[in-house]
Amino acid sequence: MIHSVSFQHLPITKLHHGKIDQGMDSLAMEEPLEIRVQYHSELGSTLKSISVTMRTPGQDEDLALGFLFTEGIIQSIQQIQAVHHSLFACAENKENTIQVVLSDGFTPNLQQAERNFYTTSSCGVCGKGSIESIKTVSQFTEIAANPFSLPSSLLMELPKRLRESQELFELTGGLHASALFDSQGNMMAMREDVGRHNALDKLIGYAFKNNLLPLSHSVLLLSGRASFELIQKASMAGIPIVAAMGAPSSLAVSLAAEMGITLIGFLNAHRFNIYTQEHRILLPIHENSH
Amino acid sequence: MIHSVSFQHLPITKLHHGKIDQGMDSLAMEEPLEIRVQYHSELGSTLKSISVTMRTPGQDEDLALGFLFTEGIIQSIQQIQAVHHSLFACAENKENTIQVVLSDGFTPNLQQAERNFYTTSSCGVCGKGSIESIKTVSQFTEIAANPFSLPSSLLMELPKRLRESQELFELTGGLHASALFDSQGNMMAMREDVGRHNALDKLIGYAFKNNLLPLSHSVLLLSGRASFELIQKASMAGIPIVAAMGAPSSLAVSLAAEMGITLIGFLNAHRFNIYTQEHRILLPIHENSH
Repeated sequence: MIHSVSFQHLPITKLHHGKIDQGMDSLAMEEPLEIRVQYHSELGSTLKSISVTMRTPGQDEDLALGFLFTEGIIQSIQQIQAVHHSLFACAENKENTIQVVLSDGFTPNLQQAERNFYTTSSCGVCGKGSIESIKTVSQFTEIAANPFSLPSSLLMELPKRLRESQELFELTGGLHASALFDSQGNMMAMREDVGRHNALDKLIGYAFKNNLLPLSHSVLLLSGRASFELIQKASMAGIPIVAAMGAPSSLAVSLAAEMGITLIGFLNAHRFNIYTQEHRILLPIHENSH
Repeated sequence: MIHSVSFQHLPITKLHHGKIDQGMDSLAMEEPLEIRVQYHSELGSTLKSISVTMRTPGQDEDLALGFLFTEGIIQSIQQIQAVHHSLFACAENKENTIQVVLSDGFTPNLQQAERNFYTTSSCGVCGKGSIESIKTVSQFTEIAANPFSLPSSLLMELPKRLRESQELFELTGGLHASALFDSQGNMMAMREDVGRHNALDKLIGYAFKNNLLPLSHSVLLLSGRASFELIQKASMAGIPIVAAMGAPSSLAVSLAAEMGITLIGFLNAHRFNIYTQEHRILLPIHENSH
């Protein structure tokens, strides 16, 4: 079902080692999604547009819930009454607006959404301030004390396991993936999207909906680079180990260090780098060159 | 000078083919940047925060101008009086706010910024609507008639030329690049950033500042994938050929087709795909397999 909306075929011209071919190509779908929240207060019903993101259609409900949770706007599934697409008259605009209806009596913290994690009242815009504001908003700040660990040999198997289930990427080459694994290396869930933040929001939204938060016994695997924003979302979900197949940024490492998250970069079947909290990765002791 | 602010060294643990090493690693810098505009009207002076983006420090002036131009808020360098960083009391927040002071008598179209290209008044949020709104706002809608062309052999050399000058990527593995080439394959400018949209904003901001727009005799090379947002920015700058080393998305192809831009994907030294307007790429005729 997801595949029917997630890619598109079209005829293209290919040049390969001097040979020209006309053939079909598969493209990752990209469409805008507007996320709205509706809530009831003494003043009546309010409908507010929170964000517009370019995403790959599919699992929009997870995406909306994951986004609202990782932005600190909602905290638990009990606050949610319903989630549904809003349909408009325009034929082109099929399922590009999703509405999250909040439970009676729950008023969301929308100032949090407007402020975001990049701006702090104390010192304007600054990386250190962004990190402080996440510590204020997150429900799960005890990550540093989490003893969850993983053998390095198992860690290096995860990219292969992700690729085996990442069918859309194989087809289009155009999607980012986020996946959760347990301590045995079993994949618990995987989500794909043209936007890496959307893939992670879909994954965390799935966990939110199924009451699996905090994800204190999970490894998060990212198919690409690790930015500040992705570590911010992992922090909000209480994830102790984040492993990226690409490079981390400076602020991603600072945030992981501050939150007590183990951050791995450049992970593949033969190698990886540990940037923070290395005690959670069980290294092959006898092969240590020191 | 750019390198002094663009990466950070730190000690990490590396595992490589069973061997553990303690060594230094270089990280791509990521810090928030707030973009503000200041303008004067009959009602006095107004200062407005337009956006906060996570970017790699360096060329913030180009980034701010490129962002405001590609969002349709400013149109020419004559509208700009000054661009400067705003310094705050907080020691951590060094150069993370940039202020664009507009010329007397010019009032920017800030409704455009609030609406953005994803939401249209006619039908809410929709890909087709997003494309229509770009056609309304762009100054350079005559791209389709532009006869600019490039031999396929030259096109396939561009990734190598980009890599030769992309020093930060070599060091950190963590940066996206955007580069402009002329019809002879000479690199005219190149910008890097942790955010692909920022790298392109920096590049277009450079062209804006130097009165080089529209870029009607240029090829834009993107180090990664081509999303809607990147093609939107290329459209605003009047670029006839966009070549991505990664995959394009469905909406990127639709927008390129609608604007008359030639869109190339999966470009490397041996191959590429042409998605739209293939007449601008001069293919080796005798080797055509059809």
